[in-house]
Amino acid sequence: MATPVSPIPLLKDELDIVIPTIRNLDFLEMWRPFFQPYHLIIVQDGDPSKVIKVPEGFDYELYNRNDINRILGPKASCISFKDSACRCFGFMVSKKKYIYTIDDDCFVAKEPSGKDINALEQHIKNLLTPSTPFFFNTLYDPYQAGADFVRGYPFSLREGVPTAVSHGLWLNIPDYDAPTQLVKPRERNTRYVDAVMTIPKGTLFPMCGMNLGFNRELIGPAMYFGLMGDGQPIGRYDDMWAGWCTKVICDHLGLGVKTGLPYIWHSKASNPFVNLKKEYKGIYWQEEIIPFFQTTTLPKECTTVQKCYIELSKHVKAKLGKVDEYFIKLADAMVTWIEAWDELNPSGGKAAELANGASK
Amino acid sequence: MATPVSPIPLLKDELDIVIPTIRNLDFLEMWRPFFQPYHLIIVQDGDPSKVIKVPEGFDYELYNRNDINRILGPKASCISFKDSACRCFGFMVSKKKYIYTIDDDCFVAKEPSGKDINALEQHIKNLLTPSTPFFFNTLYDPYQAGADFVRGYPFSLREGVPTAVSHGLWLNIPDYDAPTQLVKPRERNTRYVDAVMTIPKGTLFPMCGMNLGFNRELIGPAMYFGLMGDGQPIGRYDDMWAGWCTKVICDHLGLGVKTGLPYIWHSKASNPFVNLKKEYKGIYWQEEIIPFFQTTTLPKECTTVQKCYIELSKHVKAKLGKVDEYFIKLADAMVTWIEAWDELNPSGGKAAELANGASK
Repeated sequence: MATPVSPIPLLKDELDIVIPTIRNLDFLEMWRPFFQPYHLIIVQDGDPSKVIKVPEGFDYELYNRNDINRILGPKASCISFKDSACRCFGFMVSKKKYIYTIDDDCFVAKEPSGKDINALEQHIKNLLTPSTPFFFNTLYDPYQAGADFVRGYPFSLREGVPTAVSHGLWLNIPDYDAPTQLVKPRERNTRYVDAVMTIPKGTLFPMCGMNLGFNRELIGPAMYFGLMGDGQPIGRYDDMWAGWCTKVICDHLGLGVKTGLPYIWHSKASNPFVNLKKEYKGIYWQEEIIPFFQTTTLPKECTTVQKCYIELSKHVKAKLGKVDEYFIKLADAMVTWIEAWDELNPSGGKAAELANGASK
Repeated sequence: MATPVSPIPLLKDELDIVIPTIRNLDFLEMWRPFFQPYHLIIVQDGDPSKVIKVPEGFDYELYNRNDINRILGPKASCISFKDSACRCFGFMVSKKKYIYTIDDDCFVAKEPSGKDINALEQHIKNLLTPSTPFFFNTLYDPYQAGADFVRGYPFSLREGVPTAVSHGLWLNIPDYDAPTQLVKPRERNTRYVDAVMTIPKGTLFPMCGMNLGFNRELIGPAMYFGLMGDGQPIGRYDDMWAGWCTKVICDHLGLGVKTGLPYIWHSKASNPFVNLKKEYKGIYWQEEIIPFFQTTTLPKECTTVQKCYIELSKHVKAKLGKVDEYFIKLADAMVTWIEAWDELNPSGGKAAELANGASK
C-alpha cells in the first residue's frame, strides 16, 4: 500500500537534505514518499574512489573527499575525514534556507497508531513556528493544534522567538554513549512521547546529528561539527560540539531550539567497543567543556552568527586550550570554518544580521 | 470491574493528601482505590457552619475557618479565605514528609490504553527519583524504566539532585487563563504526553495547584499560596506565586522540580468571566513579577527554606512593593506564614537544613 503523503511538500525549494555516508543509499527507498521532492546533498566519507549508489529518481549532488579538497583548498582541513562530522560540508555548500540532516541507518518510524511518520514535515513545522525559551510552558509546544499557553504564562512572551533548530528523536536504538551501550546492550527506546518543546534559555542539551533540522540562514555558520575521526584524538562528539556552540549562540541572539517530535527508527547500534575508543577522551573532557559553555557569555557587539562563532573560538582557545592542545587546533579550525563559510556564502553574514535584526 | 491497584500503597504513613473544598467530597468515590489507604487533610473554605460530607471509609481531619483562626490566632491572617489558596494551611498542619494536593473537580484520568491512572503513585515515583536540573536530557526522565541519559550527558551530573516538587498535568479542561478560556471555550486537552522531565535550573514555570506533589521536608515552607480571594485584589495566582517562590528556592538549594505525568481528568472549566475579574491585575502584574523572580538571587547564608523565604519576602517588599502596595501586604504575610510554620513545626528548619546539607 502506498504511504499517504501530504499533497504539497512543504518548503520544497527552500530545503536541502544532507546525508553523510560511506555506503549505497538503499535506505532512501523507505524515505522516497517523503524525500523525493527535495534536493539531496550527499557527503561521501572515506575512500573517494568508491562509488556510492543512489536509488533512481532522487535529485542530488554528491561530494567526496576530492571534491571537498578541490572546493575548499587548504581550508578543507577544517572538514573531518572518516567521521560523519564531514556532514557539515553539506551545510556550507547548500544555498537553501533550511537543512534537514539524517543518518543512513535511520528509517521511517511509526506513530503508536501505526501511521508512518513524515519526520521532515514535522521538522519543518517545528522550524516554521516560534520557540519559547524564556519561560516554560507545561503543556509543551503552545503552537501545536489543541495546545496553548497555560494560565500564568506572561502574555508579553507569547509571541515567541524565531526557531533556529529542530532536534528530533529516535525510536528503537537510543543514542547512548559507549559505557551505557555496554551496560544496557538490550535497551530499546519504545516510549513515543507526543511532544515538542523549547529548550529553555541558559540550558545546554546533547544535540544528536542523526535527525536534525535547522534554519541555515539563522544559525548555519554555528553548525560546525568540529575535528573528529582521522588524525584526531576523538570521535562521536561532532554533533555535541555543534549543539553546545549553537545553543550558546541561539541564547545570545534570541533564537529558539526545539526538541522532541519527530521520531525516526534508528535501526542498528554502533559497536560499543569502537565507540568507547572514540569517546573516552570526550567523556572526561566534557566534564570541563560543559561548565565552560555554561559560563561563556558573548558581548553585545556579536550581532551575527559569524561574529559570535569567532568570539567563541577565542574563548575555546583561551580556556579549553588548557584542558588539551586539541582545543587549540579546534579553535583554529573554527576560524577556518567561518572563513570557508563566508567564501562560499558571500552574503551570509548580512542575511543573518538582517534576520536577527528583524526578530528583535 | 475493580480497578487494579498496586498491592502496597507507597509511602502510606509518610504522605498526606490535602484537599481544599467548599462542597461534599463525592469526587473521592472515584479515587477510593488509590486514596483510601492515605490520610486526608481537608481544608474547608467559605462558610464554616456548612457541613462537608466525606464518603465513608476515608481517614481524614477537617479544618474550617474557625479551626484555622483558633489554631493560628492573629497569624491566621496569612491564610486566604474564599479562595483555594487556603489549601496551604493543610501543608502547615501536616506532620508528614510528603504532600499530595488535588482539587475536588479532578477525576481519575485514563492512559491511552484505557487503564486508570494512579496519579498519586506516579507523583510518589517522581518524588522518590532524582531530578536533573543542570543539563537537559533529550529522552526525558532518565530514571524511568527503559530510559537513561543520552550520549553527551556529563557523567558527573547523572546522580541528579533530590526532587522537591512533582507537577502533574490535566486532560480534558486545560489550565488556561480567562482570556484564553474566552477565546477558546471549546478547547480540550486530549494529548497524552508520556513523559516526566526536570524543569532546568534558572527556568521558571507556571505551577498549577490542581494536581501537585511535593516533599514537605525539603520545600514545605516555600509552598505558601499567598493572599488571594476575600479582601484581596487578586485571585487565581495562589499556585503561581507558590511556584515562582518554590522554583527560585529550589534552584538556590540545589533541589529539583519535575513536570509531566501524571494526568488527572479536569472535569469542568471555571467561569471565565469570574476568572477574568480575579485575574486581571495578575495578568499585568506578572509582566513585572516574572522578571523580578528571574533576576532574584539569594545569598549563600540562606541554607534553609525558611531563611530563603524570609530573604525573598524582603526582595518582594523592596522591588514589587513599587508595583502595588498589595505586595507590601503580601511580603508581610510571607513572614507571618514562616512564623506560623515554625510554630507548628518546631523542628522543621533543622530538618530542612539537614536534608539540604545531606544532598550537597
